[in-house]
Amino acid sequence: MGVQENVQKPLDRLAEALSPEMEAVNALIRQRMSSEHAPRIPEVTAHLIEAGGKRLRPMLTLAAAKMLGYAGPYHVHLAATVEFIHTATLLHDDVVDESRQRRGRPTANLLWDNKSSVLVGDYLFARSFQLMVEPGNLRTLEILSNAAATIAEGEVLQLTAAQDLRTDEGVYLTVVRGKTAALFSAATEVGGVIAGAPADQVRALFDYGDALGIAFQIVDDLLDYGGATETIGKNVGDDFRERKLTLPVIKAVARATPEERAFWSRTIEQGDQRDGDLDRALSLLSRHGAMEAARADALRWSATARTALANLPPHPIRDMLSDLADFVVSRVA
Amino acid sequence: MGVQENVQKPLDRLAEALSPEMEAVNALIRQRMSSEHAPRIPEVTAHLIEAGGKRLRPMLTLAAAKMLGYAGPYHVHLAATVEFIHTATLLHDDVVDESRQRRGRPTANLLWDNKSSVLVGDYLFARSFQLMVEPGNLRTLEILSNAAATIAEGEVLQLTAAQDLRTDEGVYLTVVRGKTAALFSAATEVGGVIAGAPADQVRALFDYGDALGIAFQIVDDLLDYGGATETIGKNVGDDFRERKLTLPVIKAVARATPEERAFWSRTIEQGDQRDGDLDRALSLLSRHGAMEAARADALRWSATARTALANLPPHPIRDMLSDLADFVVSRVA
Repeated sequence: MGVQENVQKPLDRLAEALSPEMEAVNALIRQRMSSEHAPRIPEVTAHLIEAGGKRLRPMLTLAAAKMLGYAGPYHVHLAATVEFIHTATLLHDDVVDESRQRRGRPTANLLWDNKSSVLVGDYLFARSFQLMVEPGNLRTLEILSNAAATIAEGEVLQLTAAQDLRTDEGVYLTVVRGKTAALFSAATEVGGVIAGAPADQVRALFDYGDALGIAFQIVDDLLDYGGATETIGKNVGDDFRERKLTLPVIKAVARATPEERAFWSRTIEQGDQRDGDLDRALSLLSRHGAMEAARADALRWSATARTALANLPPHPIRDMLSDLADFVVSRVA
Repeated sequence: MGVQENVQKPLDRLAEALSPEMEAVNALIRQRMSSEHAPRIPEVTAHLIEAGGKRLRPMLTLAAAKMLGYAGPYHVHLAATVEFIHTATLLHDDVVDESRQRRGRPTANLLWDNKSSVLVGDYLFARSFQLMVEPGNLRTLEILSNAAATIAEGEVLQLTAAQDLRTDEGVYLTVVRGKTAALFSAATEVGGVIAGAPADQVRALFDYGDALGIAFQIVDDLLDYGGATETIGKNVGDDFRERKLTLPVIKAVARATPEERAFWSRTIEQGDQRDGDLDRALSLLSRHGAMEAARADALRWSATARTALANLPPHPIRDMLSDLADFVVSRVA
């Protein structure tokens, strides 16, 4: 990110470069989150969608399309599709995780109830499919419906894998590609497809989104065990308390002594957690260099994302996407 | 249904007439409910999908397509799509209703947990969208994605309307069109569209499915308050105990004295139910002729379904669909 103090963050620069398109996306989102019959739908959706999320995923679609010369209008529909899929998964995730806070506000399942979150999430999924049909492009339909299946599969896999010490880095990667990277890579890929880009450029966009999403999730998992100076809207150790086996722990388990393995088994597999266990976990992560190793992985994925961009034509937006790949890991760099 | 004792039920005759196609649908369902990474997905899905459901909805798609001369292969994909959407909604409904039994077996949310039901339901939704993309027909994509949105909207509307005595027959019809009829009418309509049928025949198929679905749901609501000699797999009064305002109660509320209205308000709106309340409810339904009036509505919708078929060319399957419209209401006729 360089040494300049006044440099705009890459996401803000992207938002500026894509400002008219993002306004169109936001208008479309507001229009499609309405419901003729059920006022609870826009209430619940607005609570989440207007909570100041970064709109990172729809911006990726707009960026990819614009960078490759597409003048519209259907990148707007695809971007809104991506944001609706993301919002639907957040509503369902908060039910599954029994979360009480999201983006610094009470979750919808807490303010209303699980029923509303499940059914409004279903509505947004359906809305996303209506939106993705409108461009009339079968290839983008394939990509987005495949992504939706990969997301759900990753979430189900996480249900069983997250509390099983046999979960290795390969399984972790499958979960992360599902729960996070699949939507990033679909977001960038459909932007290229709707722009009519050649296959190698579409592939480069997929690779960029995939690697960016993986880096993003590893950083999220690292921040959960601290190491961040900024506020991240959640507490250190949430994943530990929720018994989620993330990359740092997987690395520490792989290097654990039998006695340490018993500790992880008790706290993560059996969920028997006592005072001081989080401190013990943090000290094991440190002892085995697990945080540093996970951080190195994140940096490698960030580099992979930047490398993929080399296959795309020079463009100011390409440079912003490159900076974005740096920025995503800057919170742990 | 006539007086013959050995007459096959219309659903069995349809199943026989569509036997090769239904085998292809079942094979496709088994193939697509698999998951490369998450074994819990086929476990949960198989529990529900192999519990001996009647496969009524996919059969409607196959029947419509075959009746109008379509030789395949894509009616099979559309039929499997419809069954996956149905299965996904059942998984989510059982979470929302906290159900413990479905088709005479413990529900998935009871055998596994709510998390698995929510996420496997999401997976099946996504699978259904993958399937519906494969025929490459944009009109069927529109119809099915619109149906998915209407279903979810109806379910959300039901959340708020079901416990509100101001819910009238118009709102009830919107809920029923959402939660039940939308998938029936989409099932028949896409069968006609994939067969390349002219607009008036496609409209007739929609009207048939819509009316059949409404009749089907009214009968279901009636059976919940008794009147059936056969086993229906649920107990009399479940809807009352779950505080669901269905058509018979809406009719009784419309004719209620102030004192009766207070009874409905206490039991349905406030959920304060005591011994003897179900008997009191049944006697109010009887006093105001609410069961008979709802039964008459069901018969009218059944007749509407049969009438719609007159706009379709003569075909043995058309006759079976007509008999099916009779059969659906025969349980309360």
